[in-house]
Amino acid sequence: MRLGTVRRNGSTQAFRQEGGTTTYLPVRDVGELLAREDWRSLAGEQGPAPEAGALEQPILRPEKILCAGLNYHDHAAEVGQEPPKYPTIFTKYANALVGPADDVVMPAASTKIDWEVELAVVIGQTVRHADEAAARAAILGYTVLNDVSVRDWQGRTSEWFQGKNWDRTTPWGPVIVTADELDPEAGLALECEVNGVLKQSGTTADMIFSCAQLVSYLSEFMTLAPGDLVATGTPAGVGLARKPREWIPAGAELVTRIEGIGELRNRCVAE
Amino acid sequence: MRLGTVRRNGSTQAFRQEGGTTTYLPVRDVGELLAREDWRSLAGEQGPAPEAGALEQPILRPEKILCAGLNYHDHAAEVGQEPPKYPTIFTKYANALVGPADDVVMPAASTKIDWEVELAVVIGQTVRHADEAAARAAILGYTVLNDVSVRDWQGRTSEWFQGKNWDRTTPWGPVIVTADELDPEAGLALECEVNGVLKQSGTTADMIFSCAQLVSYLSEFMTLAPGDLVATGTPAGVGLARKPREWIPAGAELVTRIEGIGELRNRCVAE
Repeated sequence: MRLGTVRRNGSTQAFRQEGGTTTYLPVRDVGELLAREDWRSLAGEQGPAPEAGALEQPILRPEKILCAGLNYHDHAAEVGQEPPKYPTIFTKYANALVGPADDVVMPAASTKIDWEVELAVVIGQTVRHADEAAARAAILGYTVLNDVSVRDWQGRTSEWFQGKNWDRTTPWGPVIVTADELDPEAGLALECEVNGVLKQSGTTADMIFSCAQLVSYLSEFMTLAPGDLVATGTPAGVGLARKPREWIPAGAELVTRIEGIGELRNRCVAE
Repeated sequence: MRLGTVRRNGSTQAFRQEGGTTTYLPVRDVGELLAREDWRSLAGEQGPAPEAGALEQPILRPEKILCAGLNYHDHAAEVGQEPPKYPTIFTKYANALVGPADDVVMPAASTKIDWEVELAVVIGQTVRHADEAAARAAILGYTVLNDVSVRDWQGRTSEWFQGKNWDRTTPWGPVIVTADELDPEAGLALECEVNGVLKQSGTTADMIFSCAQLVSYLSEFMTLAPGDLVATGTPAGVGLARKPREWIPAGAELVTRIEGIGELRNRCVAE
């Protein structure tokens, strides 16, 4: 099953896709949908599949966006780090997010803006102190996210947040694919292209901590709730690790895709 | 003016205090109050001042809790750091917060739980790219926060978040005092006591980046909105920097106070 949100008639509306059928639902977004017990069967109106350009963020304002750093063996190696013993966790707030076809806003205060394709977990159940099995059961599904990073600000202090939370820099979507349809541990191809040039091409099988392990780890210290996002790190190929270093040029088209989910296609516009 | 939220009849209610008069308002918390244009004059019902034990978090679920690290000269010195060139910013989510008289929940997974008295700014206006004057004007007021820190988890990776966001570890309140009544740059005494022993005794005049400077800095990269909190760092005297190191014992009474605002009084109970 695929879940998403579309812009329609000046508002937004969630939709569900199963077996080639798209059903438009009487709720504003997937967040509102998940708050209903009957979300899998909620009746709606069938219609044509939405156009890519009309897609909105699946959840309009996620409360928590938890991000794992250094979570691919190939990326840890390219930045000269040993595989870590514990997950490295930083955060975003909803101000940082944009939809799958929206413009990414390039901060005027930086010239070192980088790409990071990531698989993101969408939480489906409230969990705390979840073991790996319970954590796996709490995963509603998966989506695509590009953790566009403002490297000069990220490196100003030990805490990366100020390079990770610029308004309207993080596209995600285009839909959420439920967990029964995908197996990230078996390996999903994930790619990032800048102006048509492939910059990252990895597999989720290379993750250091699996999706379920990350959710379990987070739940040790905090309650996760339906609609929370967990971005699970990026594979090799980021601009920061290239020789010479590369950054996103203003006006670039950024394409971010994961096998079995779909792609984000965003224009990077100067602020 | 002082603004707060009290538990009443199984629900919550905001109140406003001016010149010794307490007015109970027809809104659920200060967050809902601030969403109204008439919040300074909204009519309500006068009554006796609330009891300290009945106070709730002034804002029930703040969307953003932005925290400055290493922001006092005396604290930077005690942990062996030079005064930083840029603010160090980390975050919390609302799951970490408790009210001014609530129990703080001591994580079973740690024995290194520390105290950090902090002045917190409450944002009153939506701001982005604010210079220092605009940032100052966007400050609604000030409150007290104890950034109780799980040091062993905080030190596991470069990113402090996992030591800072345990469920129900961060008390704040008891009220918000509007900015016209306080001048942190002139110096407000701030103190933390554990089981009646004074552990921290500092002054907000020792901050490296002022409240307005922190708000201005944050607004460079993100939109701040009414009800967002900015915790402005802790002075010297934390357990981590003591010789030998000290931690909060289970069952301890934690008192956190700032001149001109009031105090938090929390029992630290084992999970």
